[in-house]
Amino acid sequence: MTCNEPNIIESAEILSIGTELLIGQTLDTNAFYLARKMAELGIDCYHRQVVGDHMDRIEQALRRALERSDLVITTGGLGPTDDDITNQAVANVTDLPLVEDACVNQSICDQYPRARKDGYVMPRIPKGSAVYPSHNGTAPASLTTVRFNGKMRHILMLPGPPSENVPLFEEQVQPALAQYTKSKLINHFIRLVGIGEYRATQILSDLIETQTNPTIAPYAGEGEVVFRITQKLRKQETDRTEELIHEIQRRLRPYIFEIGPRSLQEVVVDLLEEKGLTCAFAESCTAGGVAARLTSVAGASRVFKGGIVAYSNDVKSALLDVSEAILKHDGAVSERCAAAMAIGCRRRTAADIAVSVTGIAGPSGGTDKKPVGTVYFGVSTPNETKVFHNQFSGNRERNRAMAVVRALDLVRREAQA
Amino acid sequence: MTCNEPNIIESAEILSIGTELLIGQTLDTNAFYLARKMAELGIDCYHRQVVGDHMDRIEQALRRALERSDLVITTGGLGPTDDDITNQAVANVTDLPLVEDACVNQSICDQYPRARKDGYVMPRIPKGSAVYPSHNGTAPASLTTVRFNGKMRHILMLPGPPSENVPLFEEQVQPALAQYTKSKLINHFIRLVGIGEYRATQILSDLIETQTNPTIAPYAGEGEVVFRITQKLRKQETDRTEELIHEIQRRLRPYIFEIGPRSLQEVVVDLLEEKGLTCAFAESCTAGGVAARLTSVAGASRVFKGGIVAYSNDVKSALLDVSEAILKHDGAVSERCAAAMAIGCRRRTAADIAVSVTGIAGPSGGTDKKPVGTVYFGVSTPNETKVFHNQFSGNRERNRAMAVVRALDLVRREAQA
Repeated sequence: MTCNEPNIIESAEILSIGTELLIGQTLDTNAFYLARKMAELGIDCYHRQVVGDHMDRIEQALRRALERSDLVITTGGLGPTDDDITNQAVANVTDLPLVEDACVNQSICDQYPRARKDGYVMPRIPKGSAVYPSHNGTAPASLTTVRFNGKMRHILMLPGPPSENVPLFEEQVQPALAQYTKSKLINHFIRLVGIGEYRATQILSDLIETQTNPTIAPYAGEGEVVFRITQKLRKQETDRTEELIHEIQRRLRPYIFEIGPRSLQEVVVDLLEEKGLTCAFAESCTAGGVAARLTSVAGASRVFKGGIVAYSNDVKSALLDVSEAILKHDGAVSERCAAAMAIGCRRRTAADIAVSVTGIAGPSGGTDKKPVGTVYFGVSTPNETKVFHNQFSGNRERNRAMAVVRALDLVRREAQA
Repeated sequence: MTCNEPNIIESAEILSIGTELLIGQTLDTNAFYLARKMAELGIDCYHRQVVGDHMDRIEQALRRALERSDLVITTGGLGPTDDDITNQAVANVTDLPLVEDACVNQSICDQYPRARKDGYVMPRIPKGSAVYPSHNGTAPASLTTVRFNGKMRHILMLPGPPSENVPLFEEQVQPALAQYTKSKLINHFIRLVGIGEYRATQILSDLIETQTNPTIAPYAGEGEVVFRITQKLRKQETDRTEELIHEIQRRLRPYIFEIGPRSLQEVVVDLLEEKGLTCAFAESCTAGGVAARLTSVAGASRVFKGGIVAYSNDVKSALLDVSEAILKHDGAVSERCAAAMAIGCRRRTAADIAVSVTGIAGPSGGTDKKPVGTVYFGVSTPNETKVFHNQFSGNRERNRAMAVVRALDLVRREAQA
């Protein structure tokens, strides 16, 4: 039933096999990786399935996937232990016999010279498959082409461990699959901060509704909004993503901090470096969260001096020179305290831009005038000191996360000004 | 078609909804989290499905899941934007009308007072469902009980963002689901720090291999190791978890910081409060990460003074009084610098215990003598100053995470001494 005629793959379905995936022991990073690879190859994925190491359920899932997808990719269940039964399930579903492969056996013996002596059970692969021996383990990848219910289908079997399947895919399988694809997929990411997903989506609603290729898809990040622009580019078609990006820029420019892959902290580090500026933070409610996030970027030391975590009023006075008068009359969560913290921080650290954060993260500490989620930010430069106020509406964790993003964005805006 | 008679949930199936999951944009951590939660509740999972934001495919997946599983959990597709269509799909499959929920509307208006004015579209939920409003977003969770092809089934809809669905699940949904399970599940968590998962698991390997009920399952945390002890307790069985915990304590006592639910930072805050002590941090490579993690605990202000993020040498001198001689001869990553930072921090913040962190997080900056992952810690109290050295072996992110955990554990050990 094998067949070798050329064939186009338009759709794929990933079938992850392994009981460990169903009981929350292993996170399915393989499916994530392969889904991205399919997008890069311009192959559509409409479904994914996960099943345990159980013959009937694997066969059922395979049949269902073969009914609706040109390519079915299995991960896992290929090792020599008893619960690795994917090859047998594929043989049952396709009516192909399982046979050993001389190249695979050789590759295993090269890696484990004692394999034969130890009675290692050599892998058996559906007859007629293209086989890709692994250099990082014993289980090979294989690509089987069959006619299933009258339709031409492909089954790609990959081993489960990422250390084995990623090199196999990158080096051997991807070039093989590329021959079966017909279009190229273009993806761009537009990243925004300071606006919620709901409002941003409203502003683009006409575009989101009418565009079919390229498409615009929103997704919410932690304190940021990301729009993905995707075009499936067939031969002789022109790339229309740039045009669409220009229109989105026209409507949402003040909120866009990146068109590309960089996170907010990466954009801030790059921008400060480009401008030859340094920054520092005086943090109360975020308590080091802003500094920790900025320094997650390797090389942040070129633009980041340091900061003060001024959690108690004592530390606000002793290390940031916030006056007793401010702490008494305005309180630690106030415009004047935020300004004094930023000024004190810049003076103490000699940074070009100092940003302060003081607020009420919750769950307690809120008042009628200053409810939980009230946060003041100070921005101090040699020229001036400004104060900003935000009212966030989440739990402690979310309020702190939102304040971290806002503080980083204030550095970005100041550096760009 | 709604029904309120009591009902037992033995099997569950997770249906993840979102095109972003199919194109490799988002890693499905929700399914991982929920699979683990089902295991904790004693509910079996045999399948998982992933589909995009597409009505027909969501309905098909729902029908298939309802045929074979007592409980179907959907994640995603609940937001106010156009591609969020899970509620409609459930309504189509169950023949239930969609209705607004007064509590949910109130919760949304509390969070976004302008919601009505802005024409925000309120969520509509299958009639008769139990509804759980969110405090961290607009989309609620809901649990719908229906008869499907003659069988009693439950559909749990959860919003997609983990910052919304995790609190909803933990606080509201889990207790509701627990009523539908037949055997009581006893879970205990033993939390360790200062030992790797591999070594800890080796020390318990005989227990892990032979125990079937209760079972021991290792969980790797960020810099900590957690063992979950689980017994599925049916009527007339006795709880044998205590006995097993004693044996594990006997073997691993020095590393255990908690038998219970508390995180390391919660244990530290509670312990300091109990002893009437305060702490402060001087952080170089972790850059605020230790302070941010400690203050993730509400009420940390009772025991935490603040700290200095001393990223540059200038700040180490100016704010922590580290001498030029130390910075020149020993360098910023050294025993003497760690000691000086801790002493300076304690003096400046007036805390009872000051802990410093200085190291090379990577990827660059390592030398033969001080490779990437070298971290020194100082612990200063009114009585003495001690220095500790660790060699971590990860990437930048992991080295920083390990150093944060180590610093918190040093506070714990000092407070306990």
